[in-house]
Amino acid sequence: MTALVDDLISLLEPRRVLSEPEHLITYGFDGTAALHGDASVVVLPVNSAEIVAIVQYAAQRKIPIVSRGSGTGLSGGSIPVPGGIILCLVKMDRILELDEKNLTVLVEAGAITQKVAEAADGIGLLYPPDPGSMKISTIGGNVAENSGGLRGLKYGITRDYVMGMEVVLANGDLVWLGSKCVKDVAGYSMKDVFVGSEGTLGIMTKILLKLVPKPAAKKTVLATFVRMSDAADTVSAIIAAKIIPCTLEFLDRVTIGCVEDYAKVGLPRDAAAILLMESDGHPAVVEEQVATMERIARECGAVSVVVARDAEHAAQLATARRAAFSALARVSPTTILEDATVPRSELTRMINFIQEVSERHRLKVGIFGHMGDGNLHPTFLTDERNHEEMERVEMAMAEIFTFAVQLGGTITGEHGVGLAKKRFLPAAIGDASLGLMRQLKRALDPDNILNPGKIFD
Amino acid sequence: MTALVDDLISLLEPRRVLSEPEHLITYGFDGTAALHGDASVVVLPVNSAEIVAIVQYAAQRKIPIVSRGSGTGLSGGSIPVPGGIILCLVKMDRILELDEKNLTVLVEAGAITQKVAEAADGIGLLYPPDPGSMKISTIGGNVAENSGGLRGLKYGITRDYVMGMEVVLANGDLVWLGSKCVKDVAGYSMKDVFVGSEGTLGIMTKILLKLVPKPAAKKTVLATFVRMSDAADTVSAIIAAKIIPCTLEFLDRVTIGCVEDYAKVGLPRDAAAILLMESDGHPAVVEEQVATMERIARECGAVSVVVARDAEHAAQLATARRAAFSALARVSPTTILEDATVPRSELTRMINFIQEVSERHRLKVGIFGHMGDGNLHPTFLTDERNHEEMERVEMAMAEIFTFAVQLGGTITGEHGVGLAKKRFLPAAIGDASLGLMRQLKRALDPDNILNPGKIFD
Repeated sequence: MTALVDDLISLLEPRRVLSEPEHLITYGFDGTAALHGDASVVVLPVNSAEIVAIVQYAAQRKIPIVSRGSGTGLSGGSIPVPGGIILCLVKMDRILELDEKNLTVLVEAGAITQKVAEAADGIGLLYPPDPGSMKISTIGGNVAENSGGLRGLKYGITRDYVMGMEVVLANGDLVWLGSKCVKDVAGYSMKDVFVGSEGTLGIMTKILLKLVPKPAAKKTVLATFVRMSDAADTVSAIIAAKIIPCTLEFLDRVTIGCVEDYAKVGLPRDAAAILLMESDGHPAVVEEQVATMERIARECGAVSVVVARDAEHAAQLATARRAAFSALARVSPTTILEDATVPRSELTRMINFIQEVSERHRLKVGIFGHMGDGNLHPTFLTDERNHEEMERVEMAMAEIFTFAVQLGGTITGEHGVGLAKKRFLPAAIGDASLGLMRQLKRALDPDNILNPGKIFD
Repeated sequence: MTALVDDLISLLEPRRVLSEPEHLITYGFDGTAALHGDASVVVLPVNSAEIVAIVQYAAQRKIPIVSRGSGTGLSGGSIPVPGGIILCLVKMDRILELDEKNLTVLVEAGAITQKVAEAADGIGLLYPPDPGSMKISTIGGNVAENSGGLRGLKYGITRDYVMGMEVVLANGDLVWLGSKCVKDVAGYSMKDVFVGSEGTLGIMTKILLKLVPKPAAKKTVLATFVRMSDAADTVSAIIAAKIIPCTLEFLDRVTIGCVEDYAKVGLPRDAAAILLMESDGHPAVVEEQVATMERIARECGAVSVVVARDAEHAAQLATARRAAFSALARVSPTTILEDATVPRSELTRMINFIQEVSERHRLKVGIFGHMGDGNLHPTFLTDERNHEEMERVEMAMAEIFTFAVQLGGTITGEHGVGLAKKRFLPAAIGDASLGLMRQLKRALDPDNILNPGKIFD
């Protein structure tokens, strides 16, 4: 290991090669509960050339490389691989070019998502993807995981905004893919192969993102229901009314209780569900959509519907949803946040199933998530030191994923497969589909040095 | 060849295996000028199982397969390969499921694009991609070429609407990729590998498409300019005003003259450029955007700006743009329609360059296209029997593609590479990028039986 560290120091500055235990311990984790690995050495490159040098070095010796950003991932994608190099991109965090004429921004992969969004905002533009971790996550991590967020229903996900990228391939080649053109069909769209590839096919160093005009207005509505099915009916009726809100989030009874314990925002503890609905765009459109959503919620049986008076009131209403994960996380030592996702039409069946399974396995679960796009976050409140309970969590999760797939859904809507879900992947997508992915991996990384063991073995 | 025909007849009905010269001759062409191949045998499968059987048969014997739809392609992608099987999907044209709750439609690959759009329209939804050939093109062809259209700036391209697909792989395996979930990150997004792969990686049999609510209003504006640069300034100012119109099309002087000769719609022959601008969405937004676009066009020097009074008037104004290709095509025996594309900010430089190059090579060129997304259609009016002139067309095209790439653009915005552009691809994207594409092709089609020789050798 000392030889490896010495070699890496010769490629970078000594202070950007970390090998002391007190440094390494923090790189053994990401945002995923109950997963951990031992990091051997961490490198902090400052430019693409250094990454090329590191990959060439590792490729010659078949040393694994795990690339990562801020480590906020929720599927264990950046957990260390034994004997491997942790390549952390956080020092490559520059916003290189804001192009107002072409509505694009070029950034280094280690740029913080929030900073990218703020840069766009500064010139009246919007970078729509807003994963929950955006204040600390890197854009490279978002692209590697193809992150979602709260605005997915209306604005889509990270992939929809990636126009181009610079990538270091497994052999050390540096390649640019894509362009500033909205339309570009010169050969296979290789950039789309790397989006969502979880660090297993290449290391993204620069990313070209599409921006859109910032909506002129935004309005927030909070509706409370005593029956879960009324909330689901509201969502269906909104879509049937041809309204695509920018946010359509929900919290179940357990989550409402935890939020109220934590943030004391005055939520009714007897409610079965809360829907947070937001419309953005032209003021006239927002007014109309909000009025319609309010009416629909009442018709579907909402016991209360509150429309935010102003931005401050809106932020207050949104607190319940924003605080959901923190509120659940403080209840138990271990919080297992899942992202089973189903077609919108199957939401009620899925929510009922999660509640039934959790009761049967005597588990405490809070459910919240993105109702508009069918992306649920069943969150198990448990303790990883209690092995017997963890086994029951595992069993419940397996049943939930199986049912999600039966309903035409997926085992992961926005967190990725990583280590956390790889045992569920074969049954979820089938042998032929998995075989295709393996062929792709072997073609692009024949020696399996890039994040080996993630997604599949 | 008789043995091949007999074998194929044993896999399908005799009447769906075509081998008579009068049938084969029509399958030797697609929509691309000056390209032709000799078809040996054509099969017309009616379901996925038949395609699996055909591919298994061909894979065992390493017989090439060229899959195609209506043959409207503009890069020679469906031109026959010597000794190969032409697999034509037009008999698989059913719309299988319209899902109003999840805003999706599942279709067979041979469904006509226009029929898919009409089915969506029937339930108040919109399938946005509108390639020029949509009245006869198949959706499978659109997905294989990742087709664009007039609404690309606001609504994106075909890829943005593909949620899933059934594909027959090169080994005959049948695989389903994707889901109805807006968010699905369970492993690599293999569907995105097949979108735009021009029939070289697999044969798509079914396609799941995303739909959006139909805009409530639409309005059309036609602006005329005596200076090309004024039209370009108008486009820039519209984007700077944070307006994303659904259509932003232009015609140059040559095209205007040809359209006027052909359709006599009263266009001013001394105009240097015409811009056709359309806004769609909520009526209040449309009114406001149209008023702003009208003001901007006048401020930028438009000599006339006409806002359509009603749908009929709008259709009349749009005639000039719709008739552009037909009007140019009747001038000369051969019409070479290109689709060089540049970032929006480089449009003026590109248009000037195309005009300068064409003059220098003594060629007649009309330019029209999608100004909003930088996707130009320089159209050479020539005669393929005049070999000396065709050589000059080749030289001009090579210069145009080189310049487009220098400006950060691409050699093809929406037509694909096929046969027509494969000699330009290596210089355009570089060795590393091309190497990646070859690795992908080898991994998914190791015996090179699927549309061999298209995109690259």
